[in-house]
Amino acid sequence: MNKTEDQNGSIERYIAEVTRGAASAKSEIGRAETDTKNLALKNVAEQILASGNLLRKENSRDLKEGKDRGLNAALLDRLELNDNRIQAMADGVEQVARLPDPVGQTTPLEMRPSGIRVGKMRVAIGVILIIYESRPNVTADAAALCIKSGNATILRGGSEALHSNRAIAACIHAGLEQAGLSRNIVQLINTTDRDAVGKLLQSRRHIDLVIPRGGKGLIERISRESQIPLLKHLDGVCHVYVHEDANTTMAVEIAVNAKAQRFGVCNAMETLLVDRAIAESVLPEIRQRLELKAVELRGCTETCSLLPGIAPATEQDWHEEYLAPVLAVRIVGGISQAVEHIRTYGSHHTDAIVTDNDTAAQQFLRCVDSSSVMVNASTRFADGFEYGLGAEIGISTDKLHARGPVGLEGLTSEKFIVLGNGNIRE
Amino acid sequence: MNKTEDQNGSIERYIAEVTRGAASAKSEIGRAETDTKNLALKNVAEQILASGNLLRKENSRDLKEGKDRGLNAALLDRLELNDNRIQAMADGVEQVARLPDPVGQTTPLEMRPSGIRVGKMRVAIGVILIIYESRPNVTADAAALCIKSGNATILRGGSEALHSNRAIAACIHAGLEQAGLSRNIVQLINTTDRDAVGKLLQSRRHIDLVIPRGGKGLIERISRESQIPLLKHLDGVCHVYVHEDANTTMAVEIAVNAKAQRFGVCNAMETLLVDRAIAESVLPEIRQRLELKAVELRGCTETCSLLPGIAPATEQDWHEEYLAPVLAVRIVGGISQAVEHIRTYGSHHTDAIVTDNDTAAQQFLRCVDSSSVMVNASTRFADGFEYGLGAEIGISTDKLHARGPVGLEGLTSEKFIVLGNGNIRE
Repeated sequence: MNKTEDQNGSIERYIAEVTRGAASAKSEIGRAETDTKNLALKNVAEQILASGNLLRKENSRDLKEGKDRGLNAALLDRLELNDNRIQAMADGVEQVARLPDPVGQTTPLEMRPSGIRVGKMRVAIGVILIIYESRPNVTADAAALCIKSGNATILRGGSEALHSNRAIAACIHAGLEQAGLSRNIVQLINTTDRDAVGKLLQSRRHIDLVIPRGGKGLIERISRESQIPLLKHLDGVCHVYVHEDANTTMAVEIAVNAKAQRFGVCNAMETLLVDRAIAESVLPEIRQRLELKAVELRGCTETCSLLPGIAPATEQDWHEEYLAPVLAVRIVGGISQAVEHIRTYGSHHTDAIVTDNDTAAQQFLRCVDSSSVMVNASTRFADGFEYGLGAEIGISTDKLHARGPVGLEGLTSEKFIVLGNGNIRE
Repeated sequence: MNKTEDQNGSIERYIAEVTRGAASAKSEIGRAETDTKNLALKNVAEQILASGNLLRKENSRDLKEGKDRGLNAALLDRLELNDNRIQAMADGVEQVARLPDPVGQTTPLEMRPSGIRVGKMRVAIGVILIIYESRPNVTADAAALCIKSGNATILRGGSEALHSNRAIAACIHAGLEQAGLSRNIVQLINTTDRDAVGKLLQSRRHIDLVIPRGGKGLIERISRESQIPLLKHLDGVCHVYVHEDANTTMAVEIAVNAKAQRFGVCNAMETLLVDRAIAESVLPEIRQRLELKAVELRGCTETCSLLPGIAPATEQDWHEEYLAPVLAVRIVGGISQAVEHIRTYGSHHTDAIVTDNDTAAQQFLRCVDSSSVMVNASTRFADGFEYGLGAEIGISTDKLHARGPVGLEGLTSEKFIVLGNGNIRE
């Protein structure tokens, strides 16, 4: 009993110290010059490359403990830092240094009838808490994006990667300090105690934004517990809708790419919707091409009649984010029914229409309420790099603040600036 | 006991019905054509003007009940609907009809190396809950802004204005239905039971944004209870900082205007900061001018020496949002100390510098972390109409989503749109 109280007390003190550190560091990084931030990032990249031996050594401790704890092969693979991954991590940080600095960017000023000139200036958000699982490279990626966007960061990685994350954080701290910046700009939570997350999620006064990155379980738990706004996506139940006026070759290529180019990603198609009028012209070929890639189809009653031998889809299939070689297929009676299906079962992530009909394309763009809506392109393009953001901290399916792939700009806010010449209000 | 359970059950059912209604209405208003929305708004304005007698009659019931309950004169004044106010309410709705429609606006598309073209389209947020006090005109204002920005709205006004709000809501419903739109697009909570607010604030799945408008007590309570993101400001502890290189005449005019043009508003100055080097040149005149307007000054030790007879400020004064003819005055030793004072005591609302020194102006603009930062202008300009937003639903001192005065654009979000020509990802 006494011990538990002590531990709780010490976690509370530790989190208070971390949030105090972040609060004092946020003004410093928020006002830092672009050159200083870029120098820090280049230093971090160099430190990572120079620390290869140490990083692999610390990572091997995590891997050994993970094996002993019975982590599965996929998790162990995600956890591993090898030479290629260390190089890629350093390259990623360097790349962020080369991106334009969003902080301080100003919109054109507009002269108002009162004589004041009004515009907006981009500013950092403040303190960002990032909670993530297994992959240790997120430590470097997330820290780099937050440094560049002028935010102080608190990182809470997975307990299975703690040694690796500590070694990467040491590189970040050295890089910051070499550039004359405080190490408190990036803080790694140095305990695996789960109470620490709970305490952080209650620190509404000190933390401005929480970004959870990981599986659905993690994100749901954090959504429930957090008193701080979140930037997140839960599901990627993405649709491709083949409209009756689609080019059939294009429809087949897009459907196959959206499903099978990679399975375990949030922007892969999970349900294919096909207009009745074109179903016979496209579905047999889509089936054939996907079966070559060992994709299992589950269809509505009409689809099952058209494609004998495939399994019937249940109501649950329309909700499912398989992240696997499985595809739900439904024949619909036109664009309204397609939009309605997406409204009912979609997750506001990414949905595409294939059509040569401009009116249908415009209607789909207007009516589908997802963070990315596409015409004649594979859902797999929903990605910060593909969109030209230069980087991606995550994808948001929420509607406040940022939506879709989030890059540096999504980690900033805008304040109004007003320039006058002695103007007073009458 | 049974009765309480019944009542709770019925409130729960009522709120479930309201949120279901909003969920079904949000797609309808989100996709509505600009002309249809404008027609609805014009109808609402006409209904308000045509219902003057009824509005005054229902309002007089509220006023009578308010008097019987002992509401003070200021509250009763805010509650009152007279002919001028009814006309102003209708004019306000008409004015929103004339504003450009943000929904569907598209940024220029950018061609990416993959061949896809990427841009953003502005969309409604979804369902917005607005919780407000006394002034019944908010019912019409808020509904008009939400209709124009394509959002479904749930309005919860003060219990003291329920009869007036019901009568205004009837005008809104008639206006919507005459334009062929569903009345569920704007719903007024038709009970004064306070449990209704609690239940609404837990409806995270059905409500996308909460906007509280009212006193600090209301906003603090809602912030604590809400599981839904808020757009709000708590305090307006606004500063004017007179830099040593200020034009003294300009400094006096701005300080007097920022404090005394109107006292009870959130963008009025509450603390004046003056550089030591210029204090003797401006403070005596500022004092004289403000004392003519019966403003009481409370100063730091140095200010008190310079202006004999004024009261000393306590630590609490630097935190205070007086909303009254009182001003805290502090002499500082330069811009860094001024910025530090604002960082410590400010509320991220509006802060201004008076200076002819461009370097100081730029430093102030960069370093002061408020939703509006001004150079050589009165803080009283922090306002959606003055900034050219055409309307204002409120002011946000938060950093996520919208900051500063919020107009129609702040009630919308952006989704990515991607146009391709059969593009697939390699």
